[in-house]
Amino acid sequence: MGDTVANKKIKEVRALCERSSARRKTGLFVVEGERIFREIPKDRIETVYISEDYHRDHPKVKADHILDNDQFRKLSDTRNPQGILAVVRQKRYDLNDILGGDLYLILETIQDPGNLGTMIRTAEAAGASGVIMNRECADIYSPKAARSTMGAIFRVPYMYTDDLPSAAALMKEEGITVYAAHLEGRDITGKKPAARRGYMIGNEGSGLSDDLAALANERIRIPMDDRAESLNAAVSAAILMYWGRI
Amino acid sequence: MGDTVANKKIKEVRALCERSSARRKTGLFVVEGERIFREIPKDRIETVYISEDYHRDHPKVKADHILDNDQFRKLSDTRNPQGILAVVRQKRYDLNDILGGDLYLILETIQDPGNLGTMIRTAEAAGASGVIMNRECADIYSPKAARSTMGAIFRVPYMYTDDLPSAAALMKEEGITVYAAHLEGRDITGKKPAARRGYMIGNEGSGLSDDLAALANERIRIPMDDRAESLNAAVSAAILMYWGRI
Repeated sequence: MGDTVANKKIKEVRALCERSSARRKTGLFVVEGERIFREIPKDRIETVYISEDYHRDHPKVKADHILDNDQFRKLSDTRNPQGILAVVRQKRYDLNDILGGDLYLILETIQDPGNLGTMIRTAEAAGASGVIMNRECADIYSPKAARSTMGAIFRVPYMYTDDLPSAAALMKEEGITVYAAHLEGRDITGKKPAARRGYMIGNEGSGLSDDLAALANERIRIPMDDRAESLNAAVSAAILMYWGRI
Repeated sequence: MGDTVANKKIKEVRALCERSSARRKTGLFVVEGERIFREIPKDRIETVYISEDYHRDHPKVKADHILDNDQFRKLSDTRNPQGILAVVRQKRYDLNDILGGDLYLILETIQDPGNLGTMIRTAEAAGASGVIMNRECADIYSPKAARSTMGAIFRVPYMYTDDLPSAAALMKEEGITVYAAHLEGRDITGKKPAARRGYMIGNEGSGLSDDLAALANERIRIPMDDRAESLNAAVSAAILMYWGRI
């Protein structure tokens, strides 16, 4: 590709990697790496970029643009680029698409993209029907968060909402028991969760806001050794999603 | 502090942050931030550095060196330094210090420092008696790993070994049931673990080596939705350590 065209493309892709505003405006995001590339639903792929090296090693992979290796390195968000990157269309779900299942996460202001991506990955493994987030959560379409989902971003329904309390209230109306993960909650040792349930998980540093926690059917606590102060948010979500299942 | 002395100190601390060889050679590591600082056992603190701003706001905190804010920023490993950093002595455990309890992690080639730190943090919460790692695991004394433990690094016994298979064999001789987390293992749904148990967790990408997994009393698998390929290593460790407890 000529340098002028390549530089324009690189600029576009870098903006999508670095700025959530660019992702929001275009409805696109960037997925990088061979393994996750294979998991993208074909009808959502907008543009595929590969490096010359990748093209040589994988002549059958179809790409919109082949960049020389130096150009590809500029495009990439990773230190050791694998040579394949795609611009992908975001998918929007609304609450009605998501309700009707048995297991949910309700996330308030989760700030670490890796934690957020890991939660989506674990939600898929645990068979969750959806993940509902307030707008203060990290952007699931950021490269780090999307990568941490290990492809679950293409399969687990999720949505951002301006009004997490209303979403939680609607879930309760639909017969879903909403639990708040809370250090002052009831110890879950030896208990079983409701068959249809959603777990509220709060910010890594400050936990759930009082207003949101007050909306839960119950506040619950994972048992912890006395010396420990808390669990990582993604770990808490995982233990709760598997609570009563194993 | 004069610039010459400060620059020498900054160089020493930066080496401890950036190079595991420097940490190994000196037996020291660096802990940064107010919250984790309070958790350091006092007899293991070698040197405390604070910034001028921190000193102004916390006149009672005793430090060996007060750096001006610019100098402190150079010392720090974080983007938004809190103004307090300590050089701390490492602690060595050997297997005999660690054995005798009920719950262990046996970690093979865990590469992500954040995953490793999170496992130590979760091990503390779950009441584990120790974490045993091969030398190919990330360095628990790296700033990111130590930070991710949220202070558990000062309380959970852990050790690195050149010979993880022998350590696992010794645990079995001591009556500890060793489970290998393995995608081809027996689904643990509805089962209970042995009262005294250790969980082998393998590398994030490739899982456990066949040689190590073969030493386990049993290979086990966390149930997963068909579409999901695997769980994050720290999440797997957490679910297994809480298996049978909640």
